Amino acid sequence: GEAVSRQQITLIPGDGIGPEISTAVMKIFEAANAPIRWEERNVTAIKGPGGRWMIPPDAKESMDRSKIGLKGPLKTPIAAGHPSMNLLLRKTFDLYANVRPCVSIEGYQTPYTDVNLVTIRENTEGEYSGIEHVIVDGVVQSIKLITEEASRRIAEYAFEYARNNQRASVTAVHKANIMRMSDGLFLRKCREVAETYKDIKFTEMYLDTVCLNMVQDPTQFDVLVMPNLYGDILSDLCAGLIGGLGVTPSGNIGANGVAIFESVHGTAPDIAGMDLANPTALLLSAVMMLRHMGLHDHGNKIQTACFDTIREKKVLTKDLGGNSKCSEFTAEICRRVQDLD
Amino acid sequence: GEAVSRQQITLIPGDGIGPEISTAVMKIFEAANAPIRWEERNVTAIKGPGGRWMIPPDAKESMDRSKIGLKGPLKTPIAAGHPSMNLLLRKTFDLYANVRPCVSIEGYQTPYTDVNLVTIRENTEGEYSGIEHVIVDGVVQSIKLITEEASRRIAEYAFEYARNNQRASVTAVHKANIMRMSDGLFLRKCREVAETYKDIKFTEMYLDTVCLNMVQDPTQFDVLVMPNLYGDILSDLCAGLIGGLGVTPSGNIGANGVAIFESVHGTAPDIAGMDLANPTALLLSAVMMLRHMGLHDHGNKIQTACFDTIREKKVLTKDLGGNSKCSEFTAEICRRVQDLD
Ligand SMILES: CC(C)[C@H](C(=O)O)[C@@H](O)C(=O)O
Ligand SMILES: CC(C)[C@H](C(=O)O)[C@@H](O)C(=O)O
Repeated sequence: GEAVSRQQITLIPGDGIGPEISTAVMKIFEAANAPIRWEERNVTAIKGPGGRWMIPPDAKESMDRSKIGLKGPLKTPIAAGHPSMNLLLRKTFDLYANVRPCVSIEGYQTPYTDVNLVTIRENTEGEYSGIEHVIVDGVVQSIKLITEEASRRIAEYAFEYARNNQRASVTAVHKANIMRMSDGLFLRKCREVAETYKDIKFTEMYLDTVCLNMVQDPTQFDVLVMPNLYGDILSDLCAGLIGGLGVTPSGNIGANGVAIFESVHGTAPDIAGMDLANPTALLLSAVMMLRHMGLHDHGNKIQTACFDTIREKKVLTKDLGGNSKCSEFTAEICRRVQDLD
Repeated sequence: GEAVSRQQITLIPGDGIGPEISTAVMKIFEAANAPIRWEERNVTAIKGPGGRWMIPPDAKESMDRSKIGLKGPLKTPIAAGHPSMNLLLRKTFDLYANVRPCVSIEGYQTPYTDVNLVTIRENTEGEYSGIEHVIVDGVVQSIKLITEEASRRIAEYAFEYARNNQRASVTAVHKANIMRMSDGLFLRKCREVAETYKDIKFTEMYLDTVCLNMVQDPTQFDVLVMPNLYGDILSDLCAGLIGGLGVTPSGNIGANGVAIFESVHGTAPDIAGMDLANPTALLLSAVMMLRHMGLHDHGNKIQTACFDTIREKKVLTKDLGGNSKCSEFTAEICRRVQDLD
């Protein structure tokens, strides 16, 4: 029967507004008849053998079966003494590419129009190596780790992405004038990979120059590829250009189809449980997921319904400038999804 | 006579358009009767004893006497095998604070108005330590070095700056959620210093969050203090908000009054020698210099003449949207400076 053709997805609702926006996404997926079976798992930090932090075994096991996950926001517990769960998930499943498309949303006004770019961030090493030392009292070093393998892998991902998504150019973002060896290695790998993608234009640019040009004219950018920290910064900056983390999707991609799609906004504890949250970022992340699964028709339908709702400005959550509840916004998208059939 | 009361400033005209914009600044200073005697020095990389790169002895010696320098753009010779001269200058004179005020310029339109903030960047360590290693083939590490001393020093500078410039708040920019030890140390020192400046509001914010909020509403920021690389990025981003590096001043401040003020745009070799360059960034840096020297009246007069010229839009260089020569723009500012007397 129908159940057989449904693909299992591990759903990590997350903290704060996570459960509400997850429910919204599930409702919209149902309205769109997306052939998906959700397996819900909670993710909290667990101390494993040898004192290593890990995600709960039942979440790991679910992801191992599903290969694909959708994740709401998780608290960043800086005081809790354990690493960010977001980072632990990326690490556990070797999700080496963080992909964030930033596209202007019609009807949602910002100082910028026609933004249409994608940041592709190396997601496993760099400044996020976690290796730090106290050298002597009052002198600390953090190690930025760049490897040939991870650099080549992310460069290849970026060029493949560009090719598969009809994008014309890839820009490598770096500070190889300062970190000559590490960013130098990253840049060299990008150049090497570029050689094998003659159909895609390749440019390189200093991170500071990218930031400056980005706020002056973001339309000049297409696909950008960069080490971990630069991606953290630039993806947030670009999200800001189109309306913030409430409307920006994100995917963490690994090998062999393994991937976790996530909204990267916070848990918004102040409005949690009040039916006020905006599910757009999680929904658009789920649309990325559908495309990743090859379910383009379902993805396009949901995206159209979401963007139409925003453009019409009649049923919007507070942060989008309206005064509708999360459930009303969700119902409006569901209605439009069904109308599109 | 008059010569006695003139203070010596070391002028490093720089490469490309450097000499033209330096001449422009000297003319405007003359029109304003600024009590300054320029001592011009060229700066190129010299290989010293033990193969260490250094600045030419006569430039070093001039700066040692002047204590204060004004500097045009220098080529960044990534291929030349020696470090950036800009960095070497900062290092040679231990110019530990890089200060870049970003203030909206009336008449020069960008998507942002009422920007009025200052980035204060630690200028001596962090990601710019220059320490890098190949661990094994294909694995490179760069070391980010954070010390208690440099962190306290820059935090103190930021709070002193805020107090002396009637600014209400200081925000520490960090990624202590990721680099817990290094950025953690930096942040701890900021917090400690904040305790002793009860009149200044202190906040802390993740670098990615700052970037996002910055492009959404830069007016929420006041003084920002941060490690070296973050300052490199954020200062360029903020410059972009108000019109770019062509209109943004910069100062590198050390102990005991030692300082070098510089324009941070490029050398623009394509228009060098053609009387087309825009001297505004170097001029506004020179205005910062005048204030640093306590010559507030001269500084204010020159700044007013420059901003009036831009606001009137009659005599502007090409990059500012006009079609005047550098010399015409300069003459217009001189005329206004003299009118202000
Ligand atoms: C939550 C945090 C650890 C994370 C990061 O720094 O990468 C976040 O900012 C992101 O961009 O996904
Ligand atoms: C020229 C370059 C080495 C320098 C830097 O990276 O600091 C520049 O970008 C700056 O901001 O002054």
